[in-house]
Amino acid sequence: MFEAVELGRKVKKRDYAERVPTLRTELLTLQRELVEAGFSVLVVLGGVDGAGKSELANLLHEWMDARFLTAHAFGPPNDEEHDRPDHWRYWMSLPPAGRTGIYVGSWYTGPIVKRALGKIDDAQLDEAMQRVVTFEQMLADDGTLVLKFWLHLSEEQQTKRIAKLGKDPRTAWRVTKHERKLLRHHADMRRSAERALRLTSTGPAPWVLVEAGHARYRNLTVAQTVLDRLRVHLEEHARQRQAAAANPPAPEPEPDATLPTVLDRVDLSSRVDRDTYDSELSRLQSRFGRLARHAQQVGQCCTLVFEGWDAAGKGGCIRRLIHPLDARFFRVIPISAPTEEERAHHYLWRFWRHIPRAGHMTIYDRSWYGRVLVERVEGYATHDQWQRAFKEINDFEEQLRDHGTVLLKFWLQVSQEEQLRRFEERRRIPWKQHKLTDEDWRNREKAPLYMRAVNDMVARTSTEFAPWSLVPAEDKHVARLHVLQTACDALDQALQSR
Amino acid sequence: MFEAVELGRKVKKRDYAERVPTLRTELLTLQRELVEAGFSVLVVLGGVDGAGKSELANLLHEWMDARFLTAHAFGPPNDEEHDRPDHWRYWMSLPPAGRTGIYVGSWYTGPIVKRALGKIDDAQLDEAMQRVVTFEQMLADDGTLVLKFWLHLSEEQQTKRIAKLGKDPRTAWRVTKHERKLLRHHADMRRSAERALRLTSTGPAPWVLVEAGHARYRNLTVAQTVLDRLRVHLEEHARQRQAAAANPPAPEPEPDATLPTVLDRVDLSSRVDRDTYDSELSRLQSRFGRLARHAQQVGQCCTLVFEGWDAAGKGGCIRRLIHPLDARFFRVIPISAPTEEERAHHYLWRFWRHIPRAGHMTIYDRSWYGRVLVERVEGYATHDQWQRAFKEINDFEEQLRDHGTVLLKFWLQVSQEEQLRRFEERRRIPWKQHKLTDEDWRNREKAPLYMRAVNDMVARTSTEFAPWSLVPAEDKHVARLHVLQTACDALDQALQSR
Repeated sequence: MFEAVELGRKVKKRDYAERVPTLRTELLTLQRELVEAGFSVLVVLGGVDGAGKSELANLLHEWMDARFLTAHAFGPPNDEEHDRPDHWRYWMSLPPAGRTGIYVGSWYTGPIVKRALGKIDDAQLDEAMQRVVTFEQMLADDGTLVLKFWLHLSEEQQTKRIAKLGKDPRTAWRVTKHERKLLRHHADMRRSAERALRLTSTGPAPWVLVEAGHARYRNLTVAQTVLDRLRVHLEEHARQRQAAAANPPAPEPEPDATLPTVLDRVDLSSRVDRDTYDSELSRLQSRFGRLARHAQQVGQCCTLVFEGWDAAGKGGCIRRLIHPLDARFFRVIPISAPTEEERAHHYLWRFWRHIPRAGHMTIYDRSWYGRVLVERVEGYATHDQWQRAFKEINDFEEQLRDHGTVLLKFWLQVSQEEQLRRFEERRRIPWKQHKLTDEDWRNREKAPLYMRAVNDMVARTSTEFAPWSLVPAEDKHVARLHVLQTACDALDQALQSR
Repeated sequence: MFEAVELGRKVKKRDYAERVPTLRTELLTLQRELVEAGFSVLVVLGGVDGAGKSELANLLHEWMDARFLTAHAFGPPNDEEHDRPDHWRYWMSLPPAGRTGIYVGSWYTGPIVKRALGKIDDAQLDEAMQRVVTFEQMLADDGTLVLKFWLHLSEEQQTKRIAKLGKDPRTAWRVTKHERKLLRHHADMRRSAERALRLTSTGPAPWVLVEAGHARYRNLTVAQTVLDRLRVHLEEHARQRQAAAANPPAPEPEPDATLPTVLDRVDLSSRVDRDTYDSELSRLQSRFGRLARHAQQVGQCCTLVFEGWDAAGKGGCIRRLIHPLDARFFRVIPISAPTEEERAHHYLWRFWRHIPRAGHMTIYDRSWYGRVLVERVEGYATHDQWQRAFKEINDFEEQLRDHGTVLLKFWLQVSQEEQLRRFEERRRIPWKQHKLTDEDWRNREKAPLYMRAVNDMVARTSTEFAPWSLVPAEDKHVARLHVLQTACDALDQALQSR
């Protein structure tokens, strides 16, 4: 693969001086368009040490408007990062729409270097790269322009370059033991990088191999590519917006109400008497409290998701669940309309933000499933978007699982009749009136659409590592005990298998 | 002080059972009003170990709507926190408008415990408390309701309580060496706490001493106080809003244009020839690059602020400044209209967000001085708000200085004639047109108001630890060299005195 970038390409000083001013003006012009366009750009700079990743990042900061760029490099994970899935820190670094992130270090650095040094094997490298492909695909699908450059030096060039850096007192600090070690492993790095690049050079996020032996050639190639790709992407993006505006998606066909859904299989008939409820509640709460304390101590984290019909009793379940918990170790995150900053990112970003660290618990009152429920039903998400979301959500949840998180998802099921009864009760009782809005009535009219959406959601996202619990919530007490029991059992099992 | 809360107050079980349901309903009702009201609430729970801080935090989570609460406790600072001023993590924890933060640990915990254990002296405790007074005053001025409870136990009560916690297998984990040590220092804790409370019991943020020996009494007292204070604050807040709407602030009197301002003292006559500029620029950039690398290595952080007239050349200065820098270690933060999340916090919050960590540099293109410039001139901030801002800003900058940050503030000065010339040039040259907006012309008409505001700003915020540099920017080259020279000298001096 790398032979193609060992050709000794150069750019003459005079040609460089001639091309740079135009290039800069054009870059600045497109960057201004980007601010308005509503998507973000990632520029990933990979390559062996000494190939000029930092130099290029600096150059882009000088040639472009630095106010709309952010450079990132990732060292060994700090406490906060270590306590969460690997990709958390990458998610948190993503630029909002209109901005550009420049990655001197990226999600590639760790796995490629580890493979070169023999700390992981091919299968592990492949797995990490598969995750990266999914990550970049998800961003690209969201409109993000992902540009990846691999700056290549031959072994001879790298040896010379490192020697030169080491001799110059202004750059000697950059050549540490680590760099010298990697230089000795040049051939291993080459193999490891080739494998990684091959696995991750995808349609939406291809690698551009750049011959980095000659600085002027390297700079021009990268900057020109950024410019060209950005121009095409801006045009493409504008075209797609126009097309979408001109052709609003056809509404989904009405669901066939005679077909049963998974929700019909929930047995809503169980009831529990007051005495049993009181004693069971107290027993389960004590147990949950003990388990949660144990989880804090050993650093087990938990993510709980509550979805369900309006008035199904999510709030009441959550209140019973947190009763025995220490407030310092859990957070309830209510999900309603996203904020401006959240809207400027991928829709999963605002959920990644609140991922609990080791020993902590996050309870989402509504969740990322909004994408395939309300956003699907109301047409806020296009058909492609919500269809894609099933896979994106499974990938997200798989990362939580892989990090060892206990992940529980509850759908609270009530019949349409019971919902109506509760709505009317809310209308009647003064201090419950605030809980009933016009939107609740509108949603109710769309019940058949929601039923189909829930059915698809369960079918597509009830995975072995993150199954849905369909909770019979016709009787609130039954629902609360069910949720507590499920949470206790899952946490207990996770703690025992640690 | 604490004798007043060693009276053995209790609440009977029956009375408690009778009062709690009403209290909860009322709390929930007010909490709903809070969501709409546009201010935030802090509930600080202080007190000796075993007095029930966590129990109370949990209780409030159960009695109130947990979705709008966040509990905080602060352990020893982590890497990210350690690398920034002490109060950074407290700022980052502040709830947005409409929400409540419950502090089981707070800005009081560290200093009080350290004083009790003799790790700091009275003067250091007093200094920390002075900073806290300023912090809380600032929040209160911004509309935040600050509620502080000190849960008191006598030595005898604490001894019993810790023994009980230690014996119960469900709570034994909470009693560590640290708790036993503090118990032995009960008298020291009492003295240290008394001093801290005395110094920080202010009008807007008074302490409420609570007898914590009896759980029902403690719970009712705290919850009832939260309720009462929240009710009063909501009413007061609504009244103030109405009053403000009914009586829009009188516009400031027109400034007397004959009075000189500090800006008249800037000598705009200096010029530099091209050759000198080129060689000096290159010399200063090399020097700045070397100093910045040194700063990275030793963990010195820098904060640079750029303010100035429209078209004064801030962008050009920043570009020359970052030319020799490593993109991984600096960020340029452009300040324009705040986002939704930023608007839901104190106006300084969005600047605290970007405070550089050790070894890093943040360059603010416009800054917190907007409060006393554009917000004052345009009437976005009331007279009280911008007057208060001078002190708030000085306090903020003092914290940066105390943390060892190099803080430089540049005002780029051009004459009105030169500004007009540049505006017209921008209008003429196609690729500069985007830089000129209608707002620039409107601002220009208000030049006398801005001159007065700048004069006041310099008078009030050019401190010994953070002086303003008034940069002659009539000649762009002179300005760039001036900024680079100032930055080099300041950084050099800071590095030498480390």
